Amino acid sequence: MKLKNNLSTENGWQIRENKFNEDQIVITGSNFMIGNGYLGYRGTSAEWGADEYVGCIVTDTYDMADGKWRELCNAPNALYTKLYLEGELVSEFEGKINDYQREINLKHGLYNRKLNWSANNGASVQLDVEKFASYDNLHLVPMEYTFEVQEDTEVTLITGIDGQVWDLNGQHLKDHELIVEDDLTVIKAVTGESNIELDVAEALEIVGAKPKSEEIIKEEKRILRQLKFDLAAGEQVTLKKVMSVYSSNDLANPFEAATRDAKTAIEAGYDKLKEVHQTKWDQVWEVSDIKVDGDLEAQTLLRFNLYHNTICTPAHSDKLPIGARGLSCQAYQGSAFWDQEIFNMPMFLYTRPELAKNILKYRYHTLDGARKKAKDLGYYGAYYAWVSGKSGEELCPDFFFENVLTGRKIRNHFNDWQIHVSPDIAYAVWQYYQATGDWEFIEDYGAEIVFEIAQFLVAHAYFKKDKNRYEFIRLLGPDEYHENVDNNAFTNYQAQYALDKAVTIYEKLQDTAPQKLIKLLGSLGLGEEDIDNWREMVELIYLPQPDEETLLIEQFDGYFDLEDVTPKEVESRLKDPHEYLGWPVGVTVRTQVSKQADVVQLLCMHNSFDEEVMKANYEYYEPRCEHGSSLSPSSHSIVASKVGNTDEAYKHLMKSATVDLYNTNKAIHGGTFIGGIHTAACGGTWQAIVKGFAGLEVKTEGISFDPILPEEWDELEFNLKYNYNDLELEITDEQLVINSVVKNKDAIEVKVNDEVKIIKPGEEVVFSLCS
Amino acid sequence: MKLKNNLSTENGWQIRENKFNEDQIVITGSNFMIGNGYLGYRGTSAEWGADEYVGCIVTDTYDMADGKWRELCNAPNALYTKLYLEGELVSEFEGKINDYQREINLKHGLYNRKLNWSANNGASVQLDVEKFASYDNLHLVPMEYTFEVQEDTEVTLITGIDGQVWDLNGQHLKDHELIVEDDLTVIKAVTGESNIELDVAEALEIVGAKPKSEEIIKEEKRILRQLKFDLAAGEQVTLKKVMSVYSSNDLANPFEAATRDAKTAIEAGYDKLKEVHQTKWDQVWEVSDIKVDGDLEAQTLLRFNLYHNTICTPAHSDKLPIGARGLSCQAYQGSAFWDQEIFNMPMFLYTRPELAKNILKYRYHTLDGARKKAKDLGYYGAYYAWVSGKSGEELCPDFFFENVLTGRKIRNHFNDWQIHVSPDIAYAVWQYYQATGDWEFIEDYGAEIVFEIAQFLVAHAYFKKDKNRYEFIRLLGPDEYHENVDNNAFTNYQAQYALDKAVTIYEKLQDTAPQKLIKLLGSLGLGEEDIDNWREMVELIYLPQPDEETLLIEQFDGYFDLEDVTPKEVESRLKDPHEYLGWPVGVTVRTQVSKQADVVQLLCMHNSFDEEVMKANYEYYEPRCEHGSSLSPSSHSIVASKVGNTDEAYKHLMKSATVDLYNTNKAIHGGTFIGGIHTAACGGTWQAIVKGFAGLEVKTEGISFDPILPEEWDELEFNLKYNYNDLELEITDEQLVINSVVKNKDAIEVKVNDEVKIIKPGEEVVFSLCS
Ligand SMILES: [Ca+2]
Ligand SMILES: [Ca+2]
Repeated sequence: MKLKNNLSTENGWQIRENKFNEDQIVITGSNFMIGNGYLGYRGTSAEWGADEYVGCIVTDTYDMADGKWRELCNAPNALYTKLYLEGELVSEFEGKINDYQREINLKHGLYNRKLNWSANNGASVQLDVEKFASYDNLHLVPMEYTFEVQEDTEVTLITGIDGQVWDLNGQHLKDHELIVEDDLTVIKAVTGESNIELDVAEALEIVGAKPKSEEIIKEEKRILRQLKFDLAAGEQVTLKKVMSVYSSNDLANPFEAATRDAKTAIEAGYDKLKEVHQTKWDQVWEVSDIKVDGDLEAQTLLRFNLYHNTICTPAHSDKLPIGARGLSCQAYQGSAFWDQEIFNMPMFLYTRPELAKNILKYRYHTLDGARKKAKDLGYYGAYYAWVSGKSGEELCPDFFFENVLTGRKIRNHFNDWQIHVSPDIAYAVWQYYQATGDWEFIEDYGAEIVFEIAQFLVAHAYFKKDKNRYEFIRLLGPDEYHENVDNNAFTNYQAQYALDKAVTIYEKLQDTAPQKLIKLLGSLGLGEEDIDNWREMVELIYLPQPDEETLLIEQFDGYFDLEDVTPKEVESRLKDPHEYLGWPVGVTVRTQVSKQADVVQLLCMHNSFDEEVMKANYEYYEPRCEHGSSLSPSSHSIVASKVGNTDEAYKHLMKSATVDLYNTNKAIHGGTFIGGIHTAACGGTWQAIVKGFAGLEVKTEGISFDPILPEEWDELEFNLKYNYNDLELEITDEQLVINSVVKNKDAIEVKVNDEVKIIKPGEEVVFSLCS
Repeated sequence: MKLKNNLSTENGWQIRENKFNEDQIVITGSNFMIGNGYLGYRGTSAEWGADEYVGCIVTDTYDMADGKWRELCNAPNALYTKLYLEGELVSEFEGKINDYQREINLKHGLYNRKLNWSANNGASVQLDVEKFASYDNLHLVPMEYTFEVQEDTEVTLITGIDGQVWDLNGQHLKDHELIVEDDLTVIKAVTGESNIELDVAEALEIVGAKPKSEEIIKEEKRILRQLKFDLAAGEQVTLKKVMSVYSSNDLANPFEAATRDAKTAIEAGYDKLKEVHQTKWDQVWEVSDIKVDGDLEAQTLLRFNLYHNTICTPAHSDKLPIGARGLSCQAYQGSAFWDQEIFNMPMFLYTRPELAKNILKYRYHTLDGARKKAKDLGYYGAYYAWVSGKSGEELCPDFFFENVLTGRKIRNHFNDWQIHVSPDIAYAVWQYYQATGDWEFIEDYGAEIVFEIAQFLVAHAYFKKDKNRYEFIRLLGPDEYHENVDNNAFTNYQAQYALDKAVTIYEKLQDTAPQKLIKLLGSLGLGEEDIDNWREMVELIYLPQPDEETLLIEQFDGYFDLEDVTPKEVESRLKDPHEYLGWPVGVTVRTQVSKQADVVQLLCMHNSFDEEVMKANYEYYEPRCEHGSSLSPSSHSIVASKVGNTDEAYKHLMKSATVDLYNTNKAIHGGTFIGGIHTAACGGTWQAIVKGFAGLEVKTEGISFDPILPEEWDELEFNLKYNYNDLELEITDEQLVINSVVKNKDAIEVKVNDEVKIIKPGEEVVFSLCS
């Protein structure tokens, strides 16, 4: 089935590129990437190098070059392979493409490239390449590179490790050592500032023909093998390679580990490696897949997003963040924003909850970074970094954008006024408990996180005596265009929620783990009066209410006094298309045009508003939203579903799901790289379906659904884990069928629209959907 | 004695311009102006018109033209007189100046012009013109215009009323009626928006020669008389004129009043008018003069400033503001800033206290404007306008400056974040009581002002529970370059002072006027709990304290974290000399460079800091101050004196005293008029001497001096009124002599350095000054 941009799918499990598009290699490099949470290898051709943005981004290799940005390293590329027919390089950029197809197989994370190509000198070849980032041994990237010449041809094959890598912000690796050991080649290097050793080993095997000559060539940061063949027409050769990557943050001796794994892997053979890799993917899809009947395009886009949200997440560690651009490139410092908990994590909460736990443990391990930020800004408690890397210290700089009209740097306040990141994390901790019932996690990790966040909120809040309420002053909400605002509704509700859960956790710990509680309070220096502070704030935090007549919730104090004008009109006021639209002097500042969902985001995450209020606010804020952030469409989709506007819900879903796949704008923007997978939008897509169309809401007492399918969809199927019970859902226009697998431990209360039923393990229950 | 800019003085009572300077006519037009608080008539030549910035600015004639700025009217000019010798116009711009001198006589407010001039056709004349704005009948501007031809000459004299006036922001007057009544000419006009009738009558008399012909000429908004003379060599003619101005805000029938006064005045004769005018000035100088022996330049400059602070003040009314540029032009909307109470008023407090009372009554009459501003911004109580005209409603626009690099308007927050204007007015009310003991004023006016200001401070303040203190958030202090700052030290101390006085007044009224108090509390809706609020805030308002080691008081939260760099360095970062230096994106914003005294202003107005603290803060903040405002030098002078640095005190005094007289920069700045007398600096000059060099401090129990004279000065003499007792002060390096006049009513406690003496009426006491 044809998709846009010369893309197609066969059965919703793969995406094929049917025409080579030179301008899009940055975008397709990200879209067709393979990865496993430890590393991400971009969807690039074997003969490409730094200029074509080849990238194998390895997690936990943070380094700052030339005092610029602390970001992850791009490892030397051990799949580097160039093929010459009678001296002419096989490349889509030259010669004649007779037949071409690239594919990312979402089901098993396989990258495949088929090329039938003729050189200018007439020689031609059929090339077939496949590679994958092993989900079994995360350090391996096996590749099978097969070529068959159509005529007798003198073929030269140059393959090895290319250390001349593309680096976004300054060269991170230095002191490259080019090593040959038995029949392995290795590049050993170390990061300039953070002094992490990163070693890449290459093992290979040639099948089908004997090279007439073979020699090792060492260039600057490159170690290559040059093999020459005299091939007869129709003769086929296969190069089997294994790239193995280790850093000194993985284990003490990365060189030994890299060489050992390369050797064992090449001996095990490509097919064996592929088999164990595919089993792991099968287990992932078994819990994560969402089936949509009647809309193959949506089915394919949906899986593309689930795939990328999966491979960007370091499932193997509880000390590493999910990057805003995942491992698709070095952008955004490989660091986490509030996206991690609010957009990426929910998918795992209800499919692979242990991943959600790892994400929150990461926040536990980076508490000191949050405490430092609070202290530096004159607060106490935990003020989580806006841009959070390994240590959790604030990585977001004071100056990010430039005023293109004045040539001066702009001071934005993402790193000291956008406080909602802290209560968002407390919100995620409670969501985790509600989804899993894992109280032990709260006792050992969650409580300290939420208590310290509560303390930060106490430190930040001001009390307005005459109005008898607490207020939060000088904020940024999710709508980053409007800084220096007071009582941002989203922030105030999240803060109240966080404090409320802090009190709940405190009171429950008094029963379940009094000793742990005392020890924790001692270590945090908290006493009963601090808990009373929390209780008082829960009561008295100012929560902007829906206006009696208009039902509208004001985004922040004075928002409705701003000029009410459309995003199009505001954009017409730009003097330069690259002007920053936001505070302090952007064209949106004194208007109601927002960058992304703010009140709509509130409605997404708090179910205390009735449908009438949600509808009024959705219909007010959506047309005034400029969707300047990829986080915006999925939240709008969820609320559109909640208010029964499936057409708009579907439109927003499609926008969220295609932000990368159908992205055609230049990913290089005035010299700055702005490509890379929008991982938050990927997680948002899952939510738009399960929370939006299926209408899932989870409470400690049970779960509920409020299903409403888009017209195009005949059936929607997905799985949910609730308190470690596996549930299977099938939704059509007529009914919702929910199946509790036999081995489940609990009977679960399920409410659909207003009907409540209890489902015991092994039971299947059908809810009819009248309308 | 020569002064700068071709100026000179004979005995410190006049300033003479000895060479005509075409480029400076805007500046000298203001410096040489005459006025009487009702009108200000610029120092211009009789033959000039709108192009030479002729201006007779009349108070209480506010009008907004073309939706621009509400400002005072420039009345039709009834002194308009053109002299032609053999058809050639007598003018400094043409022909040959043989001898030239202009003078402003400060003693009696007389403008005088002497010109010996030859036309290109050879004819020459000695012209001698004098005019004054009567201090007896404020509506009169008499002029004596005498000319003597050196050869037989046919002379044409055109004189009348020129209604084609210069208007700063749009034409205010319309429907001009040109009227001849008996031998008077009148122009009747009305303001376009505010519908105020403004009538100007002209009466004249010719002495010394009979005109051979006379005819009335009516042009567009002009009514003129053309008189032709055949004069013999040496024959002298004198034109005596009287201009009389009334508006419908002065009385019901301005036309009748203008014509009546013009007639009676011309009949009384120029000399009689001048005589009664001069007596009034003698009474003013008798109380206001300051004598300095040993420094004639300072003596002259000092009197220039006292003169201008006197003529800019509407002593005849308690419903009109002192304009930031007085009546010298239409700039700054003829409106008052905090300058009025903190810079202009103190001179009157201790010399003409009834004027100070009028100023504060103006604030009483404009309470509703302040209440409206508070309500509009979501507060209650009285939030006084930053720019206050007749009604006291906020006249300061949201947009004032333009970003010259982007061409966009800048939104500054002078009109909603610069709250100190309200407590400044409460401060002035208490200063008035301390200087006069006039408790009745407090009962009838002051209490309501101070109570409503206290309520505004309650409405604005936030309480920080964990620090147990009240804070003021998102402010501008006097240093307007730094907006959006918290706990501006100046603002917090002023707020605490205002609330403290509110409590004091409340408690004292309980004894002195319980009925008035109950009535007032009733009308303001105040109860005992509101007074308790005030008491609590007095205790708990955060007052930034001097740092233990550095003794420095932080200007606002986080000020010391800003880049510490010199004004010169900051200015070198300008990309355009006309860039606005302040918030939000000016080059000073993230530096410690301030626009004007802020902490230094605090030290000026609060005597609770010991000298060590004052010295440390003066020496820290002065070099970081860019003195972008004319209010800055006088405050720095006062504190420099307080810390014994007389050289710098003298240097700052001279800067403050010469901001206009020695001003050489173009008063037309990229098309915008930025001329006009800096009246605040004039009031500031008086304070720099009496509060600075004499070290006057006034408390309810008595007054004290801490004198330290600049090296140049042999003796300093001035008068003070304290509780309506007249004191005469003489200070030399050796001693301070204080004389209490016989008719005084009280014995007064006087402290000089640490010596305390009681002075009874009729007594003279000498304090020796050891060092
Ligand atoms: Ca269908
Ligand atoms: Ca001397």
